[in-house]
Amino acid sequence: ERADGWIPLEPEKRQAINTDLQATVVELIELFHDAKQSHWNLRGPLYFPLHENLQEYAETYLKYSDLLAERQLQIGQPADGRTETVVNTANLPKFPGGFLSDRQVLDIMTERIYTVAKRVRARIESTGKNGDEVTSNKLQDLSYELDKQVWQFRVHMQ
Amino acid sequence: ERADGWIPLEPEKRQAINTDLQATVVELIELFHDAKQSHWNLRGPLYFPLHENLQEYAETYLKYSDLLAERQLQIGQPADGRTETVVNTANLPKFPGGFLSDRQVLDIMTERIYTVAKRVRARIESTGKNGDEVTSNKLQDLSYELDKQVWQFRVHMQ
Amino acid sequence: ERADGWIPLEPEKRQAINTDLQATVVELIELFHDAKQSHWNLRGPLYFPLHENLQEYAETYLKYSDLLAERQLQIGQPADGRTETVVNTANLPKFPGGFLSDRQVLDIMTERIYTVAKRVRARIESTGKNGDEVTSNKLQDLSYELDKQVWQFRVHMQ
Amino acid sequence: ERADGWIPLEPEKRQAINTDLQATVVELIELFHDAKQSHWNLRGPLYFPLHENLQEYAETYLKYSDLLAERQLQIGQPADGRTETVVNTANLPKFPGGFLSDRQVLDIMTERIYTVAKRVRARIESTGKNGDEVTSNKLQDLSYELDKQVWQFRVHMQ
Amino acid sequence: ERADGWIPLEPEKRQAINTDLQATVVELIELFHDAKQSHWNLRGPLYFPLHENLQEYAETYLKYSDLLAERQLQIGQPADGRTETVVNTANLPKFPGGFLSDRQVLDIMTERIYTVAKRVRARIESTGKNGDEVTSNKLQDLSYELDKQVWQFRVHMQ
Amino acid sequence: ERADGWIPLEPEKRQAINTDLQATVVELIELFHDAKQSHWNLRGPLYFPLHENLQEYAETYLKYSDLLAERQLQIGQPADGRTETVVNTANLPKFPGGFLSDRQVLDIMTERIYTVAKRVRARIESTGKNGDEVTSNKLQDLSYELDKQVWQFRVHMQ
Amino acid sequence: ERADGWIPLEPEKRQAINTDLQATVVELIELFHDAKQSHWNLRGPLYFPLHENLQEYAETYLKYSDLLAERQLQIGQPADGRTETVVNTANLPKFPGGFLSDRQVLDIMTERIYTVAKRVRARIESTGKNGDEVTSNKLQDLSYELDKQVWQFRVHMQ
Amino acid sequence: ERADGWIPLEPEKRQAINTDLQATVVELIELFHDAKQSHWNLRGPLYFPLHENLQEYAETYLKYSDLLAERQLQIGQPADGRTETVVNTANLPKFPGGFLSDRQVLDIMTERIYTVAKRVRARIESTGKNGDEVTSNKLQDLSYELDKQVWQFRVHMQ
Amino acid sequence: ERADGWIPLEPEKRQAINTDLQATVVELIELFHDAKQSHWNLRGPLYFPLHENLQEYAETYLKYSDLLAERQLQIGQPADGRTETVVNTANLPKFPGGFLSDRQVLDIMTERIYTVAKRVRARIESTGKNGDEVTSNKLQDLSYELDKQVWQFRVHMQ
Amino acid sequence: ERADGWIPLEPEKRQAINTDLQATVVELIELFHDAKQSHWNLRGPLYFPLHENLQEYAETYLKYSDLLAERQLQIGQPADGRTETVVNTANLPKFPGGFLSDRQVLDIMTERIYTVAKRVRARIESTGKNGDEVTSNKLQDLSYELDKQVWQFRVHMQ
Amino acid sequence: ERADGWIPLEPEKRQAINTDLQATVVELIELFHDAKQSHWNLRGPLYFPLHENLQEYAETYLKYSDLLAERQLQIGQPADGRTETVVNTANLPKFPGGFLSDRQVLDIMTERIYTVAKRVRARIESTGKNGDEVTSNKLQDLSYELDKQVWQFRVHMQ
Amino acid sequence: ERADGWIPLEPEKRQAINTDLQATVVELIELFHDAKQSHWNLRGPLYFPLHENLQEYAETYLKYSDLLAERQLQIGQPADGRTETVVNTANLPKFPGGFLSDRQVLDIMTERIYTVAKRVRARIESTGKNGDEVTSNKLQDLSYELDKQVWQFRVHMQ
Ligand SMILES: [Fe+3]
Ligand SMILES: [Fe+3]
Ligand SMILES: [Fe+3]
Ligand SMILES: [Fe+3]
Ligand SMILES: [Fe+3]
Ligand SMILES: [Fe+3]
Ligand SMILES: [Fe+3]
Ligand SMILES: [Fe+3]
Ligand SMILES: [Fe+3]
Ligand SMILES: [Fe+3]
Ligand SMILES: [Fe+3]
Ligand SMILES: [Fe+3]
Ligand SMILES: [Mg+2]
Ligand SMILES: [Mg+2]
Ligand SMILES: [Mg+2]
Ligand SMILES: [Mg+2]
Ligand SMILES: [Mg+2]
Ligand SMILES: [Mg+2]
Ligand SMILES: [Mg+2]
Ligand SMILES: [Mg+2]
Ligand SMILES: [Mg+2]
Ligand SMILES: [Mg+2]
Ligand SMILES: [Mg+2]
Ligand SMILES: [Mg+2]
Repeated sequence: ERADGWIPLEPEKRQAINTDLQATVVELIELFHDAKQSHWNLRGPLYFPLHENLQEYAETYLKYSDLLAERQLQIGQPADGRTETVVNTANLPKFPGGFLSDRQVLDIMTERIYTVAKRVRARIESTGKNGDEVTSNKLQDLSYELDKQVWQFRVHMQ
Repeated sequence: ERADGWIPLEPEKRQAINTDLQATVVELIELFHDAKQSHWNLRGPLYFPLHENLQEYAETYLKYSDLLAERQLQIGQPADGRTETVVNTANLPKFPGGFLSDRQVLDIMTERIYTVAKRVRARIESTGKNGDEVTSNKLQDLSYELDKQVWQFRVHMQ
Repeated sequence: ERADGWIPLEPEKRQAINTDLQATVVELIELFHDAKQSHWNLRGPLYFPLHENLQEYAETYLKYSDLLAERQLQIGQPADGRTETVVNTANLPKFPGGFLSDRQVLDIMTERIYTVAKRVRARIESTGKNGDEVTSNKLQDLSYELDKQVWQFRVHMQ
Repeated sequence: ERADGWIPLEPEKRQAINTDLQATVVELIELFHDAKQSHWNLRGPLYFPLHENLQEYAETYLKYSDLLAERQLQIGQPADGRTETVVNTANLPKFPGGFLSDRQVLDIMTERIYTVAKRVRARIESTGKNGDEVTSNKLQDLSYELDKQVWQFRVHMQ
Repeated sequence: ERADGWIPLEPEKRQAINTDLQATVVELIELFHDAKQSHWNLRGPLYFPLHENLQEYAETYLKYSDLLAERQLQIGQPADGRTETVVNTANLPKFPGGFLSDRQVLDIMTERIYTVAKRVRARIESTGKNGDEVTSNKLQDLSYELDKQVWQFRVHMQ
Repeated sequence: ERADGWIPLEPEKRQAINTDLQATVVELIELFHDAKQSHWNLRGPLYFPLHENLQEYAETYLKYSDLLAERQLQIGQPADGRTETVVNTANLPKFPGGFLSDRQVLDIMTERIYTVAKRVRARIESTGKNGDEVTSNKLQDLSYELDKQVWQFRVHMQ
Repeated sequence: ERADGWIPLEPEKRQAINTDLQATVVELIELFHDAKQSHWNLRGPLYFPLHENLQEYAETYLKYSDLLAERQLQIGQPADGRTETVVNTANLPKFPGGFLSDRQVLDIMTERIYTVAKRVRARIESTGKNGDEVTSNKLQDLSYELDKQVWQFRVHMQ
Repeated sequence: ERADGWIPLEPEKRQAINTDLQATVVELIELFHDAKQSHWNLRGPLYFPLHENLQEYAETYLKYSDLLAERQLQIGQPADGRTETVVNTANLPKFPGGFLSDRQVLDIMTERIYTVAKRVRARIESTGKNGDEVTSNKLQDLSYELDKQVWQFRVHMQ
Repeated sequence: ERADGWIPLEPEKRQAINTDLQATVVELIELFHDAKQSHWNLRGPLYFPLHENLQEYAETYLKYSDLLAERQLQIGQPADGRTETVVNTANLPKFPGGFLSDRQVLDIMTERIYTVAKRVRARIESTGKNGDEVTSNKLQDLSYELDKQVWQFRVHMQ
Repeated sequence: ERADGWIPLEPEKRQAINTDLQATVVELIELFHDAKQSHWNLRGPLYFPLHENLQEYAETYLKYSDLLAERQLQIGQPADGRTETVVNTANLPKFPGGFLSDRQVLDIMTERIYTVAKRVRARIESTGKNGDEVTSNKLQDLSYELDKQVWQFRVHMQ
Repeated sequence: ERADGWIPLEPEKRQAINTDLQATVVELIELFHDAKQSHWNLRGPLYFPLHENLQEYAETYLKYSDLLAERQLQIGQPADGRTETVVNTANLPKFPGGFLSDRQVLDIMTERIYTVAKRVRARIESTGKNGDEVTSNKLQDLSYELDKQVWQFRVHMQ
Repeated sequence: ERADGWIPLEPEKRQAINTDLQATVVELIELFHDAKQSHWNLRGPLYFPLHENLQEYAETYLKYSDLLAERQLQIGQPADGRTETVVNTANLPKFPGGFLSDRQVLDIMTERIYTVAKRVRARIESTGKNGDEVTSNKLQDLSYELDKQVWQFRVHMQ
């Protein structure tokens, strides 16, 4: 179609950039549900501040998953945030069911956010190298947020 | 534990009510991702109004999934909103990947919201019969919202 | 049409529920104009507080007429809020023209709101019996508002 | 009564001005219900934007009907916005009942707003000639709004 | 000075327009203090609604006195809102000191606002005839407000 | 008095409904002061989150005590929220004076909210059976809030 | 405990200041319930403005009771706002039950607020003399509010 | 087309009114860019207040250019706000490039706004004479704003 | 009258306190009009910041004149803020008419605010000595504002 | 001048960076007027959503033109956003006059935004290479917005 | 200079008052940085509530340091809030570097705020004795805030 | 400790990045106090706009010092914003005490902000080279703000 010509990103760059974006979208959706799962099933003396901050973290994941999925569309690719895709490709350990103590939540969530934060750092570099500074720039904003969350949870245990 | 005694809902009612709540939470999470998937991959002349209203619908699903999952906790049960649980128990056809025309979105989403709306209607009755008017009341508020969405999408095709 | 199948309320319930909804919509529109007519033509020492509260009551009538008319559409029926339909079916005495003293307004409006409040109470029961708890629930919210207005006007004369 | 002397508009001007105001109030109330009727019973691919803008138009009619009815009171005349008066004096064709396609709504509403817009233009002139620039000024503000609505609906069909 | 040439209103019109503006500014300042005097010294069963509405009227007087004084500056004339000028030129009876019953306030204020409202009506005409539609337009907006206040106070006594 | 006839709830239902409302109003006022007493005299590492959430709980009690007391007036009965009435009829153990550790507050408040939550559940049923769905509906909204508070405090000790 | 040394107010001053604070907190809580009791059970032509202003007065009492109770904690003393303490120590006549005419409310509430306003004036002096200007300063702010309320109610009867 | 009949302004008036509207739209767009150009390139001790007020003036020009361009559409004419049209028809001296001292900005901008203000005054009269009071009314509102700006800049040099 | 007994301030203190309050109210009203007069007739390079800050100062004068006049009522005295009273008792030099340069405004206004600031300082002491700490406290708040204004204007000339 | 030394960007970088900034400012101003021209003259069934979103796009262009023009000033260069400069240097085809169908607007605007989006991508790279990461970073933010607009318009035609 | 005469506070009082103000400003700036240092380097299970409340405390210090420094200017003295002055004159132990456990933060900060709170209490008295009730009044407001902070931190350890 | 492993930034990069962050945090704190010192002690005709804008600049410094100090924590390093550290390491000339003319403030502040702006530019490069694009990105945002401030102050002297 004629409209297919109207994609500002150079065609040869699209596939590599899309791979990084798609992976990040899926991981953020998984983290969103991890945070909500913790927000709900949490128990222990740290209930109130963790319940409240997990909700704020969850909202951060949603905001960036939308922003990056729409970047996929901008570069002419469909985004895939279907639940089955998330389960199959988020590449994180299965999240435990049932009640969770505050220590457990701190432990599990720090580990998982840390894992995604590491991957996003790598994608900042690869998207830059693959020639899309715009995507890299958005990942840098996300990276600051993820690193902040890891810090705020990590210090509970130090 | 002593704390386990502090659950206002009568013990014999908890299981049945929890079954209805858990099913609704999972279906709302699935609808949330269906709506976002449509919000992103949509194409055609109805793009702007559908893109905007699908986002609003998605926010309605999130709001009620939180409200009902927290009702599960109130009655002493953990909520399960993990992505794998959603995939395994939402009991809706697999959502299509890739781009979607506006007609397709209207068709698929109307069908899926309608399916959940029907189930929620049945749960209003069963939670009432099972003796938890409080849960039934929240499902009634949700039901109005789902029926409104079905109407607003259905009339596009009439 | 295919779209006609997408109505979550069971077909056999629709007619009875619609009858109650349509009657309430029409009466609320009549009350809206009664309240505005009083808001404008009022005279006497109670002018300021009555002028202000009649406006607030009027806004309550509009809010619920929209909410209930849209419930009609949800259950597959057109709403009829045309002026002629209101005149023919609201089933309230003709409202007096010209200036009105504050005592007259209190008297007439209390009577009229009371009449509608009684009818709405009956419809809470009938819609419940006719198997639409969702509509019944919305009428309960409206009923609280109408009963509050009757109280606030009635006590001026006690 | 002594208070009857306190009406700033000259006595000989009141009747003519009131005639124009009363007619406009009644027509705006009729347009309000026409717009709500369309807002509810609308069907077709233009549902979302029309549903939303009809609500905004309806709010414009209410705002000016209040402002002009209160101008009637300022010049010592009662306002008559009773439903029966609207039916008898709005002088517009009966509005159709039942569902309405988006094309029908555009057609019918453009015609009706246009009719009122023409009448309001004539009243700007007559109220000016009859010596009440204040009323004429308010009608000019309303006229801009009505002409804008006619434009926004008309261009859908051009 | 060179800057004196930059006054958009034609030189021959300035004096007449300024006379009307200056008179209105002064009368609005007097009304402002009359309303505050009443707001403070009021007694009687209508205390709360009158206390509150007198404050709102007072704010209306201030808003228009600023708007019209700044119109004087626009047409190259200084504005004179000094207290002594107000006392000497507002041309309204001396306002009574001490406590005031609610009936007294209604009586006195209705009379005074009515007097200014009549004068403003005359100035709408004279500024129009003297060729400054812009000033006339602002006086029309003020006139609606004053006529509304007269109505709202007058009906307390009808 | 004539005005006494204007009470929409059927006369034979009023006494039973009023008994449930009056009891709930009094218990909510007692809980309000329990929560404020805890908000003030609290000590221990959980001070900040408990201090903050106790204030929010207290505001919830006030909101519903007003809403239910006004329901008493709507059905023609005076409300009794006098301090002595609260002391004599709230039917909860005397609240301890002096400083309170965070564990003590969690323990005492969970117990007391749980007790009221159980009673409110029973009144949802009795008001329903006694034929006032409107009151029952408001109690259901309150019940969700109380059950949520019990959950949020209970999990601190699990 | 070591923490007990961290109280900025000099030890010898604490008892006297606390006595004044505790008495004021208790009286404000009593006034709060008096105002709510009047807000609910009020009847007569002054219903709307009194109903509204009694709510605002009630909120003022709550605001200062919190502020002063927290001053008690600052100076190392527990606050006692338990319902029984209020009943036993507020030292005001028992508030009447049942419906209240607007004249009764004005009469009773003016008397009670006046009584507390007098006591607070005395405590401004005693806390100043007892060397806590900070507490005295907060009581001065409260005193202005109470004196204003007495004025606004008193003038209804003058 | 049928839709072409739906233009409330009488056909014989449209051309003259459109000429005045089109000229004003183009001049306001030119003034907008003049004000931004000054906002950016300004130097000198008056930088902060001029930078800030030039931005506010610029926003006023945009607001009225939209309002008047949409009036063109209302009367059935296309608006022409293309950059080339502005350059060719705004009929103002070429704006200087490069840095500008505060005195230069005051001088140049006062002159330009004054020129447009004079033209708008003439169009108030011509649109009135040509029988469109609605357009004339909007130009009066704009005229007040322009005259105010001329005043505020002019006095810097007096 | 019986209501006259309900004045919390001791009778023997009222006259002296009222004298200070009345004088301050009148001076603040005079300053208000001085500030507006300057806000309007100002010329020179400091126009924008002075025009804007004079308006803010004027609003401060109005706020405190209301607050202190209502203190007069609280202590049982009528307030006198009539224009003639202001002219006769504000005890400040006559304010100059006509245009004012920025230097003139700074000079004149600094002098006048300084004069009132000095008087208010003296009244803080006298009201304290005369036994009304509540009034003294409000004058202290005002004093900070006046001293701040004197500072902000004074430094323009240093 | 001494002040000329205070420019943080290294002198040898300024010219190249300024060239990119100036070109972008001019193109954004052209796009702004293109979007407004479309917002006004649009016709067809997509009128409402396009009219609304074109206004939002236009506001985005203005925001970034200000931000980038002020970057020019930061690096010591004047910005040139004069209308004639825009006409001469925006380097986009002349925009068509007269009415525009919704298809035409989608077509033309997609093409033009796409053209600018491509150029901005190139300038992200050149400004980065020319050693001004700060400017490059702002262009990256703009680039995301432009690519999003191209996507949202392009999909209407797919 | 002439302007030096315009200082409302009597000359003989200025030095003593300034000494108290200067000392308080410097201590508040030190506390501000202590709170931020703690806000950042905090570790341990109380991280979230302490991190959040330390930020709020820090904002309180900034607010009062500005308010009191500007009081210095009002009384004709320069304020000295330079970092070196803070280091040399705040007269508090050196704050520890590196990470801090939540217990350490509670301990250190309680001690430091307590020290300043004691000093401010003394200055309330000295500024009162030295004849500046206005400054004393502002210190009283600050004192309440500091005493509240000491309480809220102290109780964590009780 | 185990938690020490959870730092997303690669260990070998941390020291270099931290050095740049720590230096910037300290310089921003120094600039904050420089701006407040100027905000307070300023004199001369440019007082109002400089006083206001220096406050806004100060708030910008605080915002970025928090954001960058928290970045230090994210990468596992403590932040050091203690007053003594600022004095010892900000590496800017000692700020002058006492009153400051507007020219002096412009001169001194432009110089100091310029110095920091230059250093921040260098750190954008070094953090990029040292492999932390996330920190570099935040410094780029800060750099735009600092360059803007230098521009706005510099042009006062051109
Ligand atoms: Fe989105
Ligand atoms: Fe939640
Ligand atoms: Fe609606
Ligand atoms: Fe109205
Ligand atoms: Fe003004
Ligand atoms: Fe209430
Ligand atoms: Fe509190
Ligand atoms: Fe527009
Ligand atoms: Fe007041
Ligand atoms: Fe700008
Ligand atoms: Fe400040
Ligand atoms: Fe922070
Ligand atoms: Mg970047
Ligand atoms: Mg970058
Ligand atoms: Mg409900
Ligand atoms: Mg006109
Ligand atoms: Mg229900
Ligand atoms: Mg009111
Ligand atoms: Mg005070
Ligand atoms: Mg007008
Ligand atoms: Mg960035
Ligand atoms: Mg919190
Ligand atoms: Mg004091
Ligand atoms: Mg400003």
